[in-house]
Amino acid sequence: MSNQSINLNDKFAKFSAHWTPKVIAEINDYQFKLAKIKDEFVWHTHYDTDEMFMVIKGSMIIKLRDGDVLLNEGEMYVVPKDVEHKPFAEQECHIMMIEPRGTVNTGDSDSVLTAVNDVWI
Amino acid sequence: MSNQSINLNDKFAKFSAHWTPKVIAEINDYQFKLAKIKDEFVWHTHYDTDEMFMVIKGSMIIKLRDGDVLLNEGEMYVVPKDVEHKPFAEQECHIMMIEPRGTVNTGDSDSVLTAVNDVWI
Repeated sequence: MSNQSINLNDKFAKFSAHWTPKVIAEINDYQFKLAKIKDEFVWHTHYDTDEMFMVIKGSMIIKLRDGDVLLNEGEMYVVPKDVEHKPFAEQECHIMMIEPRGTVNTGDSDSVLTAVNDVWI
Repeated sequence: MSNQSINLNDKFAKFSAHWTPKVIAEINDYQFKLAKIKDEFVWHTHYDTDEMFMVIKGSMIIKLRDGDVLLNEGEMYVVPKDVEHKPFAEQECHIMMIEPRGTVNTGDSDSVLTAVNDVWI
């Protein structure tokens, strides 16, 4: 156990690839993941969990089948389980996600964007 | 289900009392809570869960029996379960906490600072 806080910007400085979530912390069996995103992700659904998105820098859109959710810096949104969604960012955006350990970034969609899980920084 | 993002600063503007956590979102059975804190909290322990603190504005110290953890804006820290801790802020500080629904703010310590749970804003 460390007595050192986790600085989000220091963690973001450690990677540059888009759509590659990095784990920075856990509470119980939930993980905090950082990602840099840009352009279109894939439509996908998580059938077993809700998923929280929070914008740390920039802005993003979470596309839903019934409309878009705009998230600016300091804003968050919970995508309920079973709800199809597609993240999008026109410019590079830094986000934090919180979800159960083992959650696959592309959910039910097999994609070239499917990332390796449990990559800690 | 709303297509509206949650703006943390808008939520902080809705209350002023210190040490009174407000729920702003849930994923599965975990809650996102905002609090304004100032001065000393009480030493306490959560025997059944880890607890995440993130500073949105200002700075705070999480006192542990083996030292202090300083958190500035944009920094977070996970207090593992079973670890006694005491939050402290010299100036008013805005924080977000993430923990299982039903977690009592003062853990095992009965205190005048024990807050009512599940207050949504």
